[in-house]
Amino acid sequence: MLKLPGLIDPHIHVREPGQTHKEDWDSATQAALAGGVTMILAMPNTKPPIFDNSTLDLALSAAKGKARCDYAQFLGAGPDNADIAASLAPKAAGLKMYLDSTFGELRLDDMTLWTPHFEKFPKDFPIVLHSESRTMAAGILFAAIYDRPVHIAHVSLKEEILLIKAAKEKGIKVTCEVCPHHLFLTLPPPLPSPIFGENGGGLGGGRAEVRPHLATKEDVEALWQNMDVIDCFATDHAPHTLAEKDSENPPPGFPGLETLLPLLLTAVDDGRLTLDDIIQKSVINPRKIFHLPEQPETWIEVDESAEYEIKAENQFTRCGWTPFEGWKVKGKVRKVVLRGKTAFEDGKILAEQGYGRDVRVQEME
Amino acid sequence: MLKLPGLIDPHIHVREPGQTHKEDWDSATQAALAGGVTMILAMPNTKPPIFDNSTLDLALSAAKGKARCDYAQFLGAGPDNADIAASLAPKAAGLKMYLDSTFGELRLDDMTLWTPHFEKFPKDFPIVLHSESRTMAAGILFAAIYDRPVHIAHVSLKEEILLIKAAKEKGIKVTCEVCPHHLFLTLPPPLPSPIFGENGGGLGGGRAEVRPHLATKEDVEALWQNMDVIDCFATDHAPHTLAEKDSENPPPGFPGLETLLPLLLTAVDDGRLTLDDIIQKSVINPRKIFHLPEQPETWIEVDESAEYEIKAENQFTRCGWTPFEGWKVKGKVRKVVLRGKTAFEDGKILAEQGYGRDVRVQEME
Repeated sequence: MLKLPGLIDPHIHVREPGQTHKEDWDSATQAALAGGVTMILAMPNTKPPIFDNSTLDLALSAAKGKARCDYAQFLGAGPDNADIAASLAPKAAGLKMYLDSTFGELRLDDMTLWTPHFEKFPKDFPIVLHSESRTMAAGILFAAIYDRPVHIAHVSLKEEILLIKAAKEKGIKVTCEVCPHHLFLTLPPPLPSPIFGENGGGLGGGRAEVRPHLATKEDVEALWQNMDVIDCFATDHAPHTLAEKDSENPPPGFPGLETLLPLLLTAVDDGRLTLDDIIQKSVINPRKIFHLPEQPETWIEVDESAEYEIKAENQFTRCGWTPFEGWKVKGKVRKVVLRGKTAFEDGKILAEQGYGRDVRVQEME
Repeated sequence: MLKLPGLIDPHIHVREPGQTHKEDWDSATQAALAGGVTMILAMPNTKPPIFDNSTLDLALSAAKGKARCDYAQFLGAGPDNADIAASLAPKAAGLKMYLDSTFGELRLDDMTLWTPHFEKFPKDFPIVLHSESRTMAAGILFAAIYDRPVHIAHVSLKEEILLIKAAKEKGIKVTCEVCPHHLFLTLPPPLPSPIFGENGGGLGGGRAEVRPHLATKEDVEALWQNMDVIDCFATDHAPHTLAEKDSENPPPGFPGLETLLPLLLTAVDDGRLTLDDIIQKSVINPRKIFHLPEQPETWIEVDESAEYEIKAENQFTRCGWTPFEGWKVKGKVRKVVLRGKTAFEDGKILAEQGYGRDVRVQEME
């Protein structure tokens, strides 16, 4: 049995407030615990989006009542909330800026709208950018000009990871995260994973929709080849129901909390990753980048030799599917201990609703 | 009579080789002289594009036989010519990188294709970027990372000029140019110029097509308000015939060599610009940025009180139209003296074909 620290997932979509048929603070944090994740950072593109005092309260009060693991909530950057967002920074995971198209209403098209956020959001709190390709480069330029750290969400392209590498070498304050689906899946069709061969099976149509899109084999290989440039693993857990994914207008996004660790452990077994990579990128680095507190008496126990098939029916996420359905993986979370209490064991959630703590409140107490 | 130095236009499309029905080295340099421009830098998106030794020879031998004013020829950056372009740098005006869509075949979509050019093109020769909005920001990031100067072509947006200003303040080596049409025209309809009121008349349809697009009143005003951030005026003289402009697939581009100075002088008369602005941005700065030699015994004489209407029928460009048709302007080029010889006087071109010199060859002699 392998003992690891509780994982931190810096990028998940809880869907509450507003879309609890997809997920809520209860089901999302159950999925987290089942995946060995003891702390989640929640994105702000809910309904309504989280962008001011009252919407932040809305999210945090739902979380306080329901969350079974620890958490913090991101604020969204809007066209005119730079002052209020800056003032709320100590209560938030950080500021999320949507600079490219994705799910939800938050989007800052004009670069003149980026400036006040870069000027005002406190430099010791992170700004996370949804910014792809050239937009990512633009975001990194803003980091250089305003001399403040930015964290690039869900890097998926060769041109992105190589530019982040070059920017880091130049001393620009940029960190980044990569999602398992961008490490294990390529543009469909064909779907065969670079890691798992034909394992992937028939992901297609609306189910394959995700932002950033799944990329080419060359992109995926560039991510693996530059593993040292990747600061964090993040799931971008973005649940939508199967009915929605199979509809005429499929929303982009995959669930990911419960497949993160099995996929990574299988890559360790495969020799493409080390356990230390997982600890660095799923615990140490996110803690450092997002200034998160240590969770005392918190660990997970993993049976690294357990081989099994990923099945949506065994998941706690409400969305009812996974892009990795049927994948054969090696490594199973057996037990999660969170702040001295067994929160998950042998497929059962033991932490109660409300046991999870807002790590930003904790800091201020 | 006002005496000014001969102007330098760092951005024109000669259309030769390949599209001499639009313009060639003879007609383009006649238009230049008639506009008070004694040196032009020619863009490489001809047919074929200028990207290696043999295509550069093609352009330069046409220029040598026909040009009536001085010139240099840009090289185009392609997906695999970084080494050859770098080796040809001393013979070229500089390297032009097409990073956004425009007329012609040269375009570098993937940022991994930018890198070898930024790494290899000699740092004392300029790289000019066609890069709009976020792509411009990406280009400036490359300048910062590779610590080399870039020159942003045809800035048109408020978000662009403000970001260039911020990048300059940060010490990043970026310069820029603005075209008269982005200073005097707004998105049609309506066309009323911020400077000339209703003067503009009925530019519309294919005739209004230009890249970057004409922008909003707010963008135009931001350019005027940040005149100190603008290093150069450049026409982006891009002739297409009226038949082409009025066709179903109108190519983007305006002629501009012969309207540059009258428009700027009218703005001087209007109090929105100074003569020193014109000298700085059309002579001193382009000479410095592109490392161009001084032209000895070269000047232009301008009747600053002459009022008249711009008419395509009086122009030397082959394309036969102007977006400023019928505009009332004040300030007329009477005489152009180029290297001791009267090259233009009272509406007549006096310099012969072949009188123009390749300023890069001159340097090496």
